[in-house]
Amino acid sequence: MRTYLDCAPCFMKQALEAARRATSDEALHQEVVRRTARELALLDMTATPPFMAQKIHRIVRELTGNLDPYREVKERTNRLALGLLPAVRRRVRNAGAPLEMAVRMAVAGNIIDFGLERRFREEDVEDVLERAAVSPLHGGFEGFEQDAARASSILYLADNSGEIVFDRVLIEALGPHRVTVAVRGRPVLNDALREDAIAAGLTDVELVDNGSDAPGTILEDCSDQLRERFAAADMVIAKGQGNYETLSGAHRPVWFVLMAKCPVIARHIGCEPGSFVLQKR
Amino acid sequence: MRTYLDCAPCFMKQALEAARRATSDEALHQEVVRRTARELALLDMTATPPFMAQKIHRIVRELTGNLDPYREVKERTNRLALGLLPAVRRRVRNAGAPLEMAVRMAVAGNIIDFGLERRFREEDVEDVLERAAVSPLHGGFEGFEQDAARASSILYLADNSGEIVFDRVLIEALGPHRVTVAVRGRPVLNDALREDAIAAGLTDVELVDNGSDAPGTILEDCSDQLRERFAAADMVIAKGQGNYETLSGAHRPVWFVLMAKCPVIARHIGCEPGSFVLQKR
Repeated sequence: MRTYLDCAPCFMKQALEAARRATSDEALHQEVVRRTARELALLDMTATPPFMAQKIHRIVRELTGNLDPYREVKERTNRLALGLLPAVRRRVRNAGAPLEMAVRMAVAGNIIDFGLERRFREEDVEDVLERAAVSPLHGGFEGFEQDAARASSILYLADNSGEIVFDRVLIEALGPHRVTVAVRGRPVLNDALREDAIAAGLTDVELVDNGSDAPGTILEDCSDQLRERFAAADMVIAKGQGNYETLSGAHRPVWFVLMAKCPVIARHIGCEPGSFVLQKR
Repeated sequence: MRTYLDCAPCFMKQALEAARRATSDEALHQEVVRRTARELALLDMTATPPFMAQKIHRIVRELTGNLDPYREVKERTNRLALGLLPAVRRRVRNAGAPLEMAVRMAVAGNIIDFGLERRFREEDVEDVLERAAVSPLHGGFEGFEQDAARASSILYLADNSGEIVFDRVLIEALGPHRVTVAVRGRPVLNDALREDAIAAGLTDVELVDNGSDAPGTILEDCSDQLRERFAAADMVIAKGQGNYETLSGAHRPVWFVLMAKCPVIARHIGCEPGSFVLQKR
């Protein structure tokens, strides 16, 4: 998915948000905003939005010297999600169609995302679980179970910390022995790193980091190992908006699992903002 | 009020919004966004926000050749507000304290503003009138009636079209013979021009245009006539956010009448976003 002009104000907001998380020094916030504005003047509209977001978060880290501004947020959301794990597992266990419910819980986890404008509120979690359990799934479950049954190797591209605990429930339903979970190679936003996957208890899967600090999966920016897994896996499951933005035009089928929080992404998918999406493209 | 970094994403949004109103040519939208980004890289944080907004709307007009992108919006909101005029006048007539109710109705009119992010919906108008009639007035009515009673000349700085019809009700309550109404000198956003004041039926007041195309009252950018009226008037009433932003640090007392829609302005005033404000400073 290319970059749209609607992304420009959002990039600016994201830069300011990250700068404020990284430091309390207002002169540095201002410098981040100015540098971001200079990048926006040269915005490559043919690139995917995470390409620009990667630049922005590099600017924030470089100017503030804070190499992981979202670290505390990530630890907090991992803990929060782990506390919800028994309830989420129970929903899956008691469901008539456990794999579909596991997908729904993974989508629900996608709201635990501090990278975007609308803040997640902790008291909303139970509501979201309930909504995810019963809401229509844009794209639909059809084909997912069959693809999963046939696959002897599944590459699962994780998105944010916190939500990665919910991914674990889907990975358990798929059968961890055949799943490779990919996380980001270096800190960017609240995206999950290897340490977050381990904190989430993903210890019985193959864990790879993608070698990149983009908040998405820009294949050219990823390690050879990631690209090989991406090409060779029988099934690829890509979680969250950043992975959708960067892989919606990929040369192989990918199952996208996300909540379409951003209106531009929702329009690209062809659904209403806020929709729960399971879509193969 | 100076410019805050939170204004940066908002400027970008405003530029894009205005560009899309001005033309359907996407290449021009992109050029507006890039030019705005270049201006943001040089943002003067000591200037008031309307100083930057003035630049942005000049960029939009220059690049698109559309000299008044909000003209249709202005005509539509004027018509809409005129349709509400009898109901608004009735509320004032039937109120125990008619002048205070007229102030409240003028504040309510301030929501008819298409320049900002949150879109006004026509079906909300009656709700807003009712809320404005009963909500607490941040700052309070105290002193306003006394100042008005003593004044033999009142300068009323108008804000947007549409809402200027609601201003008329307050001006009628003040006594039009001693009121000078100032509108913008040239088109910018949906701000009221001379033609909007006339469409609103403001025909029994002295009408001046301020000579400026800023969406606020930047005194140095205004005509000598406006500056003289501003210095000499016994009472100045400034309507809306743009006039607050540009005159909150003025060297004379000004009565500000507005709905604090923007969270940055609300923080500067010391009230909750969405508050109805009547404040002398």
